[in-house]
Amino acid sequence: MSRFIEIVEVGPRDGLQNEAVVVSVEDRIELIRRLEAAGARRTEVVSLVNPKRVPQMAGAEEIMAGLPKAEGRSRIGLVLNAKGFDRAVEAGVDEANISLAASDGFAQANSGMTVAQQLDMVAEIAERAHNFAGSGAGGPRLSATVSTVWGCPFDGEVSVEQVASVVARLAELKIPEIALADTIGAGDPWAVTRKVEAAKKAAPDATLRLHFHDTRNTGLANAYAGVEAGVSVLDASVGGLGGCPFAPGATGNIGTEDLVYMLHRGGFETGYDLEALIETARWIGGKIGKAPASRLSRAGGFPKPRA
Amino acid sequence: MSRFIEIVEVGPRDGLQNEAVVVSVEDRIELIRRLEAAGARRTEVVSLVNPKRVPQMAGAEEIMAGLPKAEGRSRIGLVLNAKGFDRAVEAGVDEANISLAASDGFAQANSGMTVAQQLDMVAEIAERAHNFAGSGAGGPRLSATVSTVWGCPFDGEVSVEQVASVVARLAELKIPEIALADTIGAGDPWAVTRKVEAAKKAAPDATLRLHFHDTRNTGLANAYAGVEAGVSVLDASVGGLGGCPFAPGATGNIGTEDLVYMLHRGGFETGYDLEALIETARWIGGKIGKAPASRLSRAGGFPKPRA
Repeated sequence: MSRFIEIVEVGPRDGLQNEAVVVSVEDRIELIRRLEAAGARRTEVVSLVNPKRVPQMAGAEEIMAGLPKAEGRSRIGLVLNAKGFDRAVEAGVDEANISLAASDGFAQANSGMTVAQQLDMVAEIAERAHNFAGSGAGGPRLSATVSTVWGCPFDGEVSVEQVASVVARLAELKIPEIALADTIGAGDPWAVTRKVEAAKKAAPDATLRLHFHDTRNTGLANAYAGVEAGVSVLDASVGGLGGCPFAPGATGNIGTEDLVYMLHRGGFETGYDLEALIETARWIGGKIGKAPASRLSRAGGFPKPRA
Repeated sequence: MSRFIEIVEVGPRDGLQNEAVVVSVEDRIELIRRLEAAGARRTEVVSLVNPKRVPQMAGAEEIMAGLPKAEGRSRIGLVLNAKGFDRAVEAGVDEANISLAASDGFAQANSGMTVAQQLDMVAEIAERAHNFAGSGAGGPRLSATVSTVWGCPFDGEVSVEQVASVVARLAELKIPEIALADTIGAGDPWAVTRKVEAAKKAAPDATLRLHFHDTRNTGLANAYAGVEAGVSVLDASVGGLGGCPFAPGATGNIGTEDLVYMLHRGGFETGYDLEALIETARWIGGKIGKAPASRLSRAGGFPKPRA
C-alpha cells in the first residue's frame, strides 16, 4: 500500500489574499466547491481578520454560511488572535488555524505583538478551545502555522533554535498540528530537513504540516525534502495562486497540481484528481484575469492520457 | 571545506535553440562572455546541426571564432552525428557533447536513427576522437547526453533497464562523462534517485551529469535528489531560457540562478556570482523580448545584501 500525503488546499485563503483582484463571495464559494470536487479534504476557506485591513478576505461568515457541512470535508479558518477565534467558532469552521511567527520582526509587522506575546495569544485560544471541548459544545479543532521558519523579510536568517523553541511551546500548549511555513519562499531542502528534524524533537506528539512558497523555485524541492523527512501533511494553493508582498511580481504558494503531479509520479496517493485541479486553476485564473503560475496548468501531466 | 557542484551553462544552446526569436551571432557571443564573467567554467555554446533545420543555432563557426581560447573556460559544441563531430573539431570546441536518446521514438524523430543506431554513431565518434588523441593532435574531450531518461513524448514511460543499458554501452565506449536528461521535464525526485543509482552501476568509472527541465516544476527537486545521490555536475540555463516543443507555453531548462541560489543556501560552492547571473538573465530577456522564467530574476536572493 502506498503512502498517503494529505494536501491542505490554501488557495481560497493564502492564495486569494495575496492577489490584487478581490474575488466575490459567490466565486470564492464556487472555488471551494470545485476544489472539494477535485479532492480537497481540508481547505483553508476564510481568514477571520478585519476586512478593512484585508479586503480580499471580507465575507468570512457569508462563505461559511454558503458551505453546508459535508462528511469528510473540513473547512479551516485562519485566526490571528482570540477575537478572530471567537468569530471562527461563531461562523462554524471545522478547524481554526492560528497564525504566529518565528521571528519578532514579522510578528510585530503582522500583528503588533512579539513572538512571546503571540505565544500567549495561542495559550489564550487553546484555553478557550479546551473549555469548549469540556462543555461538550465541541468547537473547532486547532492547528498553528509558524511563519518565517526559513527566513524573515525583516530579521533575515531564522535559526533552528528559534524555530524549535516556538514549536516546543506550541507542543506544551497541546496544539495537535503544527505547521512550519516558508512565508517568503527562501528555504532550501537541506534546511528543510534540519528544521523538520528539530521540530519533531520539540513536538514529538504533534502532527507536523509544511507550508511552502515557490518564490525562489525551491518549493517542490522543499516539499520533497519534507516528505523524505517523514512529514505527511502539506499546504498548497490551486494554480499557485497568490504572491509575495515582499517580492513584487514573484509567485506564491506551491501549486496544488504541481505538488499532486510530483507525488503521484513518486507513487504516493493524495485523493486529488489532477485534471480537475488543472481545470479549477484555469477557472479561477479567468476570474482574476491572469494565467495560473502553476506549471501543470501549462504543460499538463505525463504520461498523457490515452485518447 | 564545502562540496563543489559544477554547473554547465546550456542557455546559449539548449535555451536559445528553443526560443522563437533568433538571436544574432554577436549577441550570442556577448551572452557567453557575460556568463563566463558570472562564473560559467563550462558552457554549451554551439550546436553543430544544419542551420536550415535549426535556424537559432546558425553561425557555430563564427561564434567559436569570436571566443578566443581562455584558461579555465571550456566551450562545448553539441553534435548529433560524426559529421557534426568533424565540424566541432574544425571549429575548435573544447568539448564535443554527443546527443542521443534512451527511447526509439525520440531517437527516430530527432535523428532518423534507432537508439542502437545512435550508439553505433557514438562508437564511430569515439573512434575518431581516439585517433585524434593517438596522433597527438589533441581534439575535443567527449561527453554524451542521453535524452528522454525520465519520459519520452512519443513512447511514454522509459524504464530503468532501458536507461541502464544505454549508459552501459556508453561506458564500454569509454565516454568519460555521461549525462542523463529529462528532456520533457516529466521526472520526479524519487525516479531521479533510482535512475542515478542504476547509471552509477552501469558506468562506475564515468562522471555523471544531470540535465533537468522545469516543465512540470520538478526541476529543482530533481536537482536536489541528484546531488543527494552523489552527482556533482548539473546543466542549467541562464534565466530558465528555452521551452518545450512538446508542451507549448511551458518553461524550459532549470534556471542557472535558481539552481545557484538553492545550492549556495545549501552550503555548496558553484563559482557563480548570483547577482551577475540575474543581470545576465535580464539582459538576454531584453534581447528575446520576454521576462526570464527563472524565479530569482523576479524575487532576488535571500538574505538581501546589506545596503
